[in-house]
Amino acid sequence: MDIASFVTSLLTSFVIFVVLVLVFTWLSRRPCNAPVYYPSLLLRGLDPWEGRSRGTRSPVGWIRQALSASETDVVATGGVDAAVYLIFLSSVLSILVFSGIVLLPVLLPVAGTDNALEKAAGLNNGKAAQNFTQLERLALGNVQKESSRLWAFLLSVYWVSFVTYFVLWKSYKHVSNLRAAARSTSDVKPEEFAVLVRDVPVPPPDQTIKDSVDSYFRALHPDTFYRSMVVMDHTKADKIYQEIESHKQKIARAEVVYAESKTASKPEGTKPTHRIGFLGLIGKKVDTIEYCNDKIKELVPKLESEQKITLREKQQQAAIVFFNRRSAAASASQTLHAQMYDRWTVMQAPEPREIVWSNLSKKIYERQIRQVVVYAIVFFTVVFYMVPITAISALTTLEKLREKLPFLKVVVDQKEIKTVLQAYLPQLALIVFLALLPSLLMFLSKLEGIPSQSHTVRAAAGKYFYFVVFNVFLGVTIGSTLFSALTTIINNPRGIINMLANSLPGSATFFLTFVALK
Amino acid sequence: MDIASFVTSLLTSFVIFVVLVLVFTWLSRRPCNAPVYYPSLLLRGLDPWEGRSRGTRSPVGWIRQALSASETDVVATGGVDAAVYLIFLSSVLSILVFSGIVLLPVLLPVAGTDNALEKAAGLNNGKAAQNFTQLERLALGNVQKESSRLWAFLLSVYWVSFVTYFVLWKSYKHVSNLRAAARSTSDVKPEEFAVLVRDVPVPPPDQTIKDSVDSYFRALHPDTFYRSMVVMDHTKADKIYQEIESHKQKIARAEVVYAESKTASKPEGTKPTHRIGFLGLIGKKVDTIEYCNDKIKELVPKLESEQKITLREKQQQAAIVFFNRRSAAASASQTLHAQMYDRWTVMQAPEPREIVWSNLSKKIYERQIRQVVVYAIVFFTVVFYMVPITAISALTTLEKLREKLPFLKVVVDQKEIKTVLQAYLPQLALIVFLALLPSLLMFLSKLEGIPSQSHTVRAAAGKYFYFVVFNVFLGVTIGSTLFSALTTIINNPRGIINMLANSLPGSATFFLTFVALK
Repeated sequence: MDIASFVTSLLTSFVIFVVLVLVFTWLSRRPCNAPVYYPSLLLRGLDPWEGRSRGTRSPVGWIRQALSASETDVVATGGVDAAVYLIFLSSVLSILVFSGIVLLPVLLPVAGTDNALEKAAGLNNGKAAQNFTQLERLALGNVQKESSRLWAFLLSVYWVSFVTYFVLWKSYKHVSNLRAAARSTSDVKPEEFAVLVRDVPVPPPDQTIKDSVDSYFRALHPDTFYRSMVVMDHTKADKIYQEIESHKQKIARAEVVYAESKTASKPEGTKPTHRIGFLGLIGKKVDTIEYCNDKIKELVPKLESEQKITLREKQQQAAIVFFNRRSAAASASQTLHAQMYDRWTVMQAPEPREIVWSNLSKKIYERQIRQVVVYAIVFFTVVFYMVPITAISALTTLEKLREKLPFLKVVVDQKEIKTVLQAYLPQLALIVFLALLPSLLMFLSKLEGIPSQSHTVRAAAGKYFYFVVFNVFLGVTIGSTLFSALTTIINNPRGIINMLANSLPGSATFFLTFVALK
Repeated sequence: MDIASFVTSLLTSFVIFVVLVLVFTWLSRRPCNAPVYYPSLLLRGLDPWEGRSRGTRSPVGWIRQALSASETDVVATGGVDAAVYLIFLSSVLSILVFSGIVLLPVLLPVAGTDNALEKAAGLNNGKAAQNFTQLERLALGNVQKESSRLWAFLLSVYWVSFVTYFVLWKSYKHVSNLRAAARSTSDVKPEEFAVLVRDVPVPPPDQTIKDSVDSYFRALHPDTFYRSMVVMDHTKADKIYQEIESHKQKIARAEVVYAESKTASKPEGTKPTHRIGFLGLIGKKVDTIEYCNDKIKELVPKLESEQKITLREKQQQAAIVFFNRRSAAASASQTLHAQMYDRWTVMQAPEPREIVWSNLSKKIYERQIRQVVVYAIVFFTVVFYMVPITAISALTTLEKLREKLPFLKVVVDQKEIKTVLQAYLPQLALIVFLALLPSLLMFLSKLEGIPSQSHTVRAAAGKYFYFVVFNVFLGVTIGSTLFSALTTIINNPRGIINMLANSLPGSATFFLTFVALK
């Protein structure tokens, strides 16, 4: 890529950006679109346009607002997590800016005024007269071997490290203070008073699990124990409840329809009916309101008896224990509670909406085995994902497809489509795999038995991190060096090298995405 | 080694054992040796022979006593640690016995009735007719290749694993119960109510460290905090105190001497004198009692002022905090106490006699750096210890020594001494190194900044473990295989192989020692 095409690409992107911003501005100013663009304001009962000049809704107005928002505002609006995320973004920006301020004015001239590339081109001037771009002139590759200019690059590595450590240390302190402030505010969050207890041992036959949790924690924390809540498997009861709710919704809808039909010419109206068979298409026709009322009457006693059974018999071996002081809960969540390692394991309670209920009752050995199995699967996925993809790519060439699926010939033989397909078909398996990978990792992390949603996300992000590190840094950087060295020895690894070269832009994008998201 | 010499060696050891036991019995029966053989009984004020028949002091009597002692007796006499040590020994014995009961009757015949070794000897019968011993006939090497007898050996590996896991799991539970019982007894140990606090931040100028520790812990544990004890550097005061004590001892001794001299012919006695110069050999002669009394009078005010200074100014940034309940101390020792990672680090308090006082006040970053440096030194010691030793061995050959130290010729040229020296000199450096290694590792572990003596011992044992694993398992087993493979390629690694072969018996001994001591 030379400078001209680089600038062209930059300008194209900018034009697209400007067009999109204008469309956004036009759409967001139409009052009928308010529920799309200002849902949080509407939810809080504010008029999006009240008390503000129309100017603040200009395409750049929100930037001014965002920049002028203090951290306290952010915490109040979006919570600590949002503020931490902003601190993360500003740290990344600081590292870039502080590194760039010193390095760009120093290193660009240092590299730009040397001429290693020209010399190299001059040596084999017959073969490759100008096989380097203008941008490459500004990089390390243009500095001659054993030149004292290399010291500038070496020292700049130290500068970048120093800036990174400094900024990270500052951010760490900042986030730590933010969390401490959030912890000591007066607005009470239930999880700050709770501890998640798992691996509750089977109680003696005359006790329920709840009794044994209560007596155990009351004995250990006589002054601070408040109450416990045992996890129960209410799948059956919930199913009946959902059924009742859906019938109630149907009745509500039917009544509206019935009322509307009354206001028309017929004063007695038409009672809404539906068929009780598959998707309402077959079976007996019934009066919706009557039928649903009957159903509800039938289901309510069923639900009540099921709820009683659940409370009595379906207690799981996990519980959430509440304390009457924040500090008591914090201290209890960090303390061993049993003589044996595999019983009464405690941890900080997650936020209620975050709990992965199905994982709570998994036993400690089950969790460990699951973890090992998941780690093994991830290892094979990260290291050997190229094997099936290369195999699939070899099968999905245009020629193979034409052979196997002859009815595609009509489409495939058109010249334009053929060109596009030839460009994309070999990468198709890779693209599909990379698109599905995050969901796969998320699914695997959930299988590990982690009790909270955000911890699952963190686990998936960690797995993704190893994937990216392995592929970008090892696979591509070291791998391609190794493989190009190997090519001189063995003669047939072209397929792998091509594959790696193909995955480079993709991996780089993912790496940047990861850095932004982490 | 054939069976005959094996039995001879066994018998010789047994004869030595019997002689030593007889000597022990004879010596221990003499009443004047009681302080040597029964110090603990004497300390508890019991007569070693009272209330027992002389028979229990027979050479086997103590075995009966030891075997009949219940675990409660052991805990009462020697503490939990002694009982745990016995459990460890009995676990090792159980693993050996349970493995042996099944494996010896099965595997010995299986291997003994095969004839792979004889066949191999028969193949090159001209060269090495009988290059295997009788004992080797009973081992895996005597089973033919691809024989179905190998299944017996494979299954026996599973049997040994199963026995090991089972015995270890039983012992783990047993030790856990023992510790729990010891923790819940009524005899109070100070460390069970205490927490060791390190990295206490520098207090504001108007507060001492003790004030800040007190206020911090009183705020965090309002109901359970009892009091704190700040670590102080009392080296100077202690020096003066030791001086006073030594003077007091001198006075006590001098008074006895003076009193004894009175009872003799002279009724006024001779006052004991000594010289005040180097080792009492030179300098002015003084009356010991008067001189020492003067010195004490001089030193006591000095000690008092020094003690005051220590209390006020020499508080270190570490403290031991006491709670009024065991559970509060246990819970506090496992809980984070500060927002920042590098302040107010807490841990279980070690036993008072075990504290390594000089390590208490080391800062967290200092400890981490020390740890990394120590680990690096240990790594190089474990992996590359052969390099200096081989170099020294090459220098300390008999010929080199004769050249460099010609005055040794008279001794060295005698034939018997020469033979012995030629056998031992090459290994001398190795023997010295292996003898010094435990002390070196102990010294390094102490440098890490670990606050308790037994933890230091554990750290040193861990380092020793890596040394043994690296040398026995990797260095000798894999290493010699590798090297013998390499010998066919390169022709000059004989020095290294010899060295490794030399170190084999030594390493094996150390491994057994380690297993016994761990």
